[in-house]
Amino acid sequence: MRELKDIVEAITADMAKQAERGQVADYIPALARVHPSRFGIAVITADGETIAAGDAGMPFSVQSVSKVFTLTMALNRLGTALWKRVGREPSGSAFNSIVQLESEQGIPRNPFINAGAIAVSDALLAGHDARETIGDILRFVRFLAEDDGVEIDSEVAHSEAATGFRNFALANYMKAFGNLENPVEDALKVYFHQCALTMTCRQLAMAGRYLMNAGIHPATQEAVVPPERARRINALMLTCGHYDGSGEFAYRVGIPGKSGVGGGILAVVPGKASIAVWSPGLNDRGNSKLGSLALERLAEATSWSVFTA
Amino acid sequence: MRELKDIVEAITADMAKQAERGQVADYIPALARVHPSRFGIAVITADGETIAAGDAGMPFSVQSVSKVFTLTMALNRLGTALWKRVGREPSGSAFNSIVQLESEQGIPRNPFINAGAIAVSDALLAGHDARETIGDILRFVRFLAEDDGVEIDSEVAHSEAATGFRNFALANYMKAFGNLENPVEDALKVYFHQCALTMTCRQLAMAGRYLMNAGIHPATQEAVVPPERARRINALMLTCGHYDGSGEFAYRVGIPGKSGVGGGILAVVPGKASIAVWSPGLNDRGNSKLGSLALERLAEATSWSVFTA
Amino acid sequence: MRELKDIVEAITADMAKQAERGQVADYIPALARVHPSRFGIAVITADGETIAAGDAGMPFSVQSVSKVFTLTMALNRLGTALWKRVGREPSGSAFNSIVQLESEQGIPRNPFINAGAIAVSDALLAGHDARETIGDILRFVRFLAEDDGVEIDSEVAHSEAATGFRNFALANYMKAFGNLENPVEDALKVYFHQCALTMTCRQLAMAGRYLMNAGIHPATQEAVVPPERARRINALMLTCGHYDGSGEFAYRVGIPGKSGVGGGILAVVPGKASIAVWSPGLNDRGNSKLGSLALERLAEATSWSVFTA
Amino acid sequence: MRELKDIVEAITADMAKQAERGQVADYIPALARVHPSRFGIAVITADGETIAAGDAGMPFSVQSVSKVFTLTMALNRLGTALWKRVGREPSGSAFNSIVQLESEQGIPRNPFINAGAIAVSDALLAGHDARETIGDILRFVRFLAEDDGVEIDSEVAHSEAATGFRNFALANYMKAFGNLENPVEDALKVYFHQCALTMTCRQLAMAGRYLMNAGIHPATQEAVVPPERARRINALMLTCGHYDGSGEFAYRVGIPGKSGVGGGILAVVPGKASIAVWSPGLNDRGNSKLGSLALERLAEATSWSVFTA
Repeated sequence: MRELKDIVEAITADMAKQAERGQVADYIPALARVHPSRFGIAVITADGETIAAGDAGMPFSVQSVSKVFTLTMALNRLGTALWKRVGREPSGSAFNSIVQLESEQGIPRNPFINAGAIAVSDALLAGHDARETIGDILRFVRFLAEDDGVEIDSEVAHSEAATGFRNFALANYMKAFGNLENPVEDALKVYFHQCALTMTCRQLAMAGRYLMNAGIHPATQEAVVPPERARRINALMLTCGHYDGSGEFAYRVGIPGKSGVGGGILAVVPGKASIAVWSPGLNDRGNSKLGSLALERLAEATSWSVFTA
Repeated sequence: MRELKDIVEAITADMAKQAERGQVADYIPALARVHPSRFGIAVITADGETIAAGDAGMPFSVQSVSKVFTLTMALNRLGTALWKRVGREPSGSAFNSIVQLESEQGIPRNPFINAGAIAVSDALLAGHDARETIGDILRFVRFLAEDDGVEIDSEVAHSEAATGFRNFALANYMKAFGNLENPVEDALKVYFHQCALTMTCRQLAMAGRYLMNAGIHPATQEAVVPPERARRINALMLTCGHYDGSGEFAYRVGIPGKSGVGGGILAVVPGKASIAVWSPGLNDRGNSKLGSLALERLAEATSWSVFTA
Repeated sequence: MRELKDIVEAITADMAKQAERGQVADYIPALARVHPSRFGIAVITADGETIAAGDAGMPFSVQSVSKVFTLTMALNRLGTALWKRVGREPSGSAFNSIVQLESEQGIPRNPFINAGAIAVSDALLAGHDARETIGDILRFVRFLAEDDGVEIDSEVAHSEAATGFRNFALANYMKAFGNLENPVEDALKVYFHQCALTMTCRQLAMAGRYLMNAGIHPATQEAVVPPERARRINALMLTCGHYDGSGEFAYRVGIPGKSGVGGGILAVVPGKASIAVWSPGLNDRGNSKLGSLALERLAEATSWSVFTA
Repeated sequence: MRELKDIVEAITADMAKQAERGQVADYIPALARVHPSRFGIAVITADGETIAAGDAGMPFSVQSVSKVFTLTMALNRLGTALWKRVGREPSGSAFNSIVQLESEQGIPRNPFINAGAIAVSDALLAGHDARETIGDILRFVRFLAEDDGVEIDSEVAHSEAATGFRNFALANYMKAFGNLENPVEDALKVYFHQCALTMTCRQLAMAGRYLMNAGIHPATQEAVVPPERARRINALMLTCGHYDGSGEFAYRVGIPGKSGVGGGILAVVPGKASIAVWSPGLNDRGNSKLGSLALERLAEATSWSVFTA
């Protein structure tokens, strides 16, 4: 393949020319004021090379991308007991649908839709103080990213709490089925703060390295998770990481990924690369429009799809 | 890794000891009379080696596994126009659910649920005679398998037609939305006959080789499909190939696969292997119980999961 | 109250001036070619007076209004055993929805939605020939109307059969759940022919007299049904007679009624009147727009709402 | 008919002998501790006679029966503008279902399911203090019942608030669609307190008199509502007053009624009687089992069904 650097730069240049950039999320001010022209990408390869382009150094709200990290924490703490409270199947419906919860008795379909991530937040709390749990999450992500510059934007967290009526509905609904152990307010406090994590593409790609690396933290050579857990988290990202656009992303890009409504996507090529892209405009399934397109181009140019012979 | 032959034989021996073998489908006599003790496996590697064990030479009804081949044919004939009539997302519901068709205007979620495969059958017809289309399908699968012993069991096809009221419902429902072009009876005739394909594990693994091989038929070196189409069919198998157990299969096995209610599974490891397993007992999602378990063991022993670093 | 005749004539004159007349059903030619300006009304009082106005003598396709008569026949033949196969609750969804059938195992919510009426048709067949059963229905309606001019329009029946894919879907779906005893084709043949009954407002109001009259046929003084059955059929008409607009009709008009897609409505004021109105334009719930409005005016002027003190 | 007093006493005696009394609601302590043997009935006729039997003087939690009174207040304050925020159709699903809210954009189907009554509570608030609104409701019901002994049980209200996660979910969900104007907590405070109204059968039958009486308060001859509004509230009670058992109640009893999970039912025979029954055991649709049966017997003996000729 061409030099990776050339590929990434060509894609970045091409993205700058795209006229149709999707809709920037506007349900909270902090997201609404991001300019649609932003595009950043950072690729960290298995041998440690980092290639970054565009707005790769600009912090953005990672939103649901954070669900990968909280799922990792929850699996490390609870092991497979977590799967009693959340499923592992694609949802077949929108990210914030409540219909499935009714027919499936308060068990969310997977940890990457909102209800599932709220259940994971609740599992992380386990009777602890919400603030403490939020601190744990922040420390974990900083450790993964090797960067204490990762922050939680409390304005975002508070805006989410003030407008997140659907999430309050989802949480109360699960509570009604006995699938939240802690007060709804505490589980949501953790959830809203994890969604308010603010990271750059560089930081996000750094934080995702253990997933391309069989669970090993490249710096410390410590096992963040055992290899089979890394593999399984990757599988969940592929089948469920893009809400009701997961099938489409697998079809076009073919790389495990997790998107957020802030326009970020973390994508993991097992054994090869950890990638973060960011462009705030979203497609009709709520995933970054140019982020998805950039990853499709990258997968094509590099043959990084996991489905490639 | 250990010798592949040893791995396959150890798995086969282990499967013979399993007490819980699932429920054999009993909605038609030809399926109901298959003995639950059956287990077969055939693995064909990229370098052409074939390893088979157990009942690998015994013909069984491939049922929905055939949907991989008819999808391939339809994509070759219609190209991306096919995607106007069927989606590419996991369904989030049972294989024969009709609910989604109502809310999504007669467009099935993917080509591997029943409704989607009926739409594909209709697309293959394209005004031709049903019998002719059925002949085309049989010839295509024989060509892929390099084996003229592949047959269509007309007893099965007729039983399916006589009892397949849900499929008649799905087809009529799509017809009501204008998503079938041919008479319902013709589309279903093609569908019931493709499901009645009878193959051995060896034949099925042979027929799947193009999908591990970037679309190339290993014998003729002819492109059955372009490489990107092979990749995309693999992606669809991973996200949608096991009905509402697709997420679970991806999580546990991590290999693109397509199951059938006859107990067969075709699994494709891009660049490495085409695998067919067969055990007639089904789990509660309608996928082969021991077939899934055997593939999980095989993926573990070989590190063939596409999510492995 | 004013003279009933004056009221009816004033309403008829007012209806002629209405500009918004709804959409005429156009899914089959025989319905599509009816002129939207048509409006007829016939009121038959308990003491035998008949008041008719407008196009009250013009035959139209009664469509789903016929479900009242077939329900009556089926209850007379099967008694309460019928209720094992069809419910008595409003559906909360469109007349031809299939979603409810999936969650409720093939048991339609009530006998007035399509699926329910198909189940009733099947119950009427009870192993007999479809043609014979259709003859029984026609004779029963002629007997009720005291008019051998009531006909079944075979062009309409054939058009329904040729385009009724949703009804084929519903019937096959129920068959899959074991809720049809006869071949799908036979049950639908009966169903399509009952819907093709062609009657004038006069004939329809005549046919409905037993329901205002405690089940007694006014001419013969014979009990068509026992009084409690007449009462219960009226109750079903009130809660379920206008598909997903039944609540609205009860709220506005307050009289048990059954509408048809041909624009007819049969309305029954227990102890007081049997009323038929017809205007082919439909509102967004599929009920006659002016027919509903005329009945609302009539109920207001006469205090015939069953909810009036 | 027999003397009404004899009928009521015979029914009461018969109810005492019933072995199957349904399940007493146990989701809050105050309901769970009510003895299943309780049965009370009070009938107030249009000419002012009161007939009471059994536990007609024992206070119970009226729960959802209160929705009739808050709907009346809201219609008086907002008029038909209320119908922009809540529908008038039977729901076709359980009293606390959230599924319909998703497909119908946060507009509850009718004011008698939980979501609908919460929307009505919110409409009543209209920016006022919750406590003030609760006071208004209490005063209104005391005025209707001519009895200052009607109370709100604050233990019940607090228990509801502490366990009512589904109601919190419904309220937040409507808030997400913009269908609550006030803070969720305030709307629910009003809702939980209205459900905590504690009344005897006598008081409840007294309070319902305006609905049998064309909207007129029998004591003051004041119009509580105009006659057409009384009629329409009766219609809503008939089509929607017993959750997903409304069709069944109309079929068997044929009288407008509203049930509550405390086991009470208010039933209104226009022009003839206001009836309250109470028995705490519920049937599988959440309506009083013996209350329904007693009303069926009463309707039969008195010919009070609105569907009777």
